[in-house]
Amino acid sequence: MSTIDPVQLTADLIRCPSVTPEEGGALILLEKVLSAAGFTCERVDRGGICNLFARWGDKGAERTFGFNGHTDVVPLGDETAWTMSPFGAEVKDGFMYGRGATDMKSGVAAFAAAAIDFVKDTPPNGAIILTITGDEEAEALHGTTALLDYMQRENEKMDVCLVGEPTCPNEMGEMIKIGRRGSLNAWFTVIGVQGHAAYPHRAKNPLTAMVRLMDILASYELDNGTAHFDASTLAVVTVDTGNPATNVIPERCSSAVNIRFNDAHSGESLSQWLQDEADKVAQAYGLQIDVKIKISGESFITPPGELSELVATAVAAETGVVPALSTTGGTSDARFVKNHCPVVEFGLVGKTMHQVDERVEVAQIPQLKAIYTRILRDYFA
Amino acid sequence: MSTIDPVQLTADLIRCPSVTPEEGGALILLEKVLSAAGFTCERVDRGGICNLFARWGDKGAERTFGFNGHTDVVPLGDETAWTMSPFGAEVKDGFMYGRGATDMKSGVAAFAAAAIDFVKDTPPNGAIILTITGDEEAEALHGTTALLDYMQRENEKMDVCLVGEPTCPNEMGEMIKIGRRGSLNAWFTVIGVQGHAAYPHRAKNPLTAMVRLMDILASYELDNGTAHFDASTLAVVTVDTGNPATNVIPERCSSAVNIRFNDAHSGESLSQWLQDEADKVAQAYGLQIDVKIKISGESFITPPGELSELVATAVAAETGVVPALSTTGGTSDARFVKNHCPVVEFGLVGKTMHQVDERVEVAQIPQLKAIYTRILRDYFA
Ligand SMILES: [Zn+2]
Ligand SMILES: [Zn+2]
Repeated sequence: MSTIDPVQLTADLIRCPSVTPEEGGALILLEKVLSAAGFTCERVDRGGICNLFARWGDKGAERTFGFNGHTDVVPLGDETAWTMSPFGAEVKDGFMYGRGATDMKSGVAAFAAAAIDFVKDTPPNGAIILTITGDEEAEALHGTTALLDYMQRENEKMDVCLVGEPTCPNEMGEMIKIGRRGSLNAWFTVIGVQGHAAYPHRAKNPLTAMVRLMDILASYELDNGTAHFDASTLAVVTVDTGNPATNVIPERCSSAVNIRFNDAHSGESLSQWLQDEADKVAQAYGLQIDVKIKISGESFITPPGELSELVATAVAAETGVVPALSTTGGTSDARFVKNHCPVVEFGLVGKTMHQVDERVEVAQIPQLKAIYTRILRDYFA
Repeated sequence: MSTIDPVQLTADLIRCPSVTPEEGGALILLEKVLSAAGFTCERVDRGGICNLFARWGDKGAERTFGFNGHTDVVPLGDETAWTMSPFGAEVKDGFMYGRGATDMKSGVAAFAAAAIDFVKDTPPNGAIILTITGDEEAEALHGTTALLDYMQRENEKMDVCLVGEPTCPNEMGEMIKIGRRGSLNAWFTVIGVQGHAAYPHRAKNPLTAMVRLMDILASYELDNGTAHFDASTLAVVTVDTGNPATNVIPERCSSAVNIRFNDAHSGESLSQWLQDEADKVAQAYGLQIDVKIKISGESFITPPGELSELVATAVAAETGVVPALSTTGGTSDARFVKNHCPVVEFGLVGKTMHQVDERVEVAQIPQLKAIYTRILRDYFA
């Protein structure tokens, strides 16, 4: 009985140059493969972005398992630094190279191959839905959200969803993600009064207030972590003035901070805190501090339970490794999917994601397919 | 009896475009005028800079009074913003406009005119030395120091010296400067370990240490002032990172501070303090902080006494204003002259110095000449 080779499918996808927002042929290829296997496919395009919805089985089935992933990739970075063709899918010393090799064309190939072979081998009493987007790496405005909007309109429903992002820091199988911290950026501009450094009392130095405010924020303990989350973190990522003259007190300076926060906070509560601290310093120093805040995502959690156990059991069975349930790391489309149904993430080792010479250990791709297959088997058992 | 008109001489000097290091015709003009009045003149040129030494009376006279000043001027800045010709010496509403009008071609004109008329009217039993430089506004490497080096070689000696820089903040006569604070610049570079903002524990954020160090320095009370000095001041003048990515913790950032310090400190003691504070923060945060320090000048004082009384008495007699003895403000060539003899500074209102539309109140130029004349009369009485 012929099966889908996830390594071949990964290579085919890597050869599609799908840097966001380019479709690059990746979703068209998947649509072809999935349609041929009996999946109902819909292109859900929005805002110049291509997305693919695919379902096997009936709409409104008793049980519906979902996979989510993306075929878009980040830009090449320093192209001359690549030692292998970035869209070549060449294999060397057991690794397949290319942009998206780990994030996350191998993941998409593995769950597509698993789903196709599973419904052919042991047609389940239920449905499988694949939502695959071309807009995860950039603004993500017209990606998974467009697919979820489509599903709501069309009354399509997943009961649970597995996002196939690379989740393992170093070793295959070591980590499942059951939630994410929220992320918030804040930009501060302190506006004082310019003057000569020899007469500081005639000026109002914005830097004096800025370094105090940034020190207060950077040394504040947001929390000690919660049941499923590490402690929230705040990083001052830039402070800039651009004053070349040491005898001049500048009029203004700016800074930015990034906060990764757990479920002890919300974007709203942190925004209020940042504004309050800025106001206090502005008042103490008698100058103006402008604050601009953008909440990139709230924290969320799918508490350890049925879904995480299902995935962890499959991972342990296939790899011999008992995965940790983690909420670390950056954002992913799980932040959208969690509004639809319980969601966890499991995928390959993400060590080289977004880097030059991004690569995936070839042997781990069929292993990932095997894990996804076992998850489907156990879910529909 | 014909006298030298200091207003005309000021206008003639303003019309010489003597932006440092250009002589512009200013020192040549003064050499001509002083030579004609019986002064022995020597051009003391060094490093591409022109300077003028002029003496009336005998070398090694019993009493020698010195004047010091500069004819070079700072650049025009935004030339289109000038409403009057910057080298035109035009008069409008009682003010003469032009670069150097207040800093300090009027001062040089006033002391040259005073000296010339004084030795002609009442030849003193003593000597008068004028040291006039073309390099005060820039590096000052080959200006007054070149003149003082020349004087040492030639065994020329001033017993006291008056620098004719503008010293009055707002009203004519209100301030004599008897010393200056020292000035020091320090540049800091904090070198950490770059990383993703989502994993701050894997990075070492240089900004966390930088804002702490700058806050420590900016909020430290260096002193409360001393007998003749205001409190020392420290201004953080720039902090720069240049990191556009809010999800990245940068590898390094830099900053600069300027310290204006009184006689409670030395450049050496402050350098040690800055290095110690940087080392403490570097150790606390486990990263590297590079410190570069440049001492622009040590503090100095000509304690209130004979010289300051001489000048203050003349100022009060001619203006009706009792001048304050001050050590405020930026550096001047008095910092070099003080190694040669007691020195104080007195001149016009400096409000518009270095600005667009620099100007001098015409009526104050003969008043300044009268003050300088009275100082000479009282000194040689
Ligand atoms: Zn990804
Ligand atoms: Zn000057």
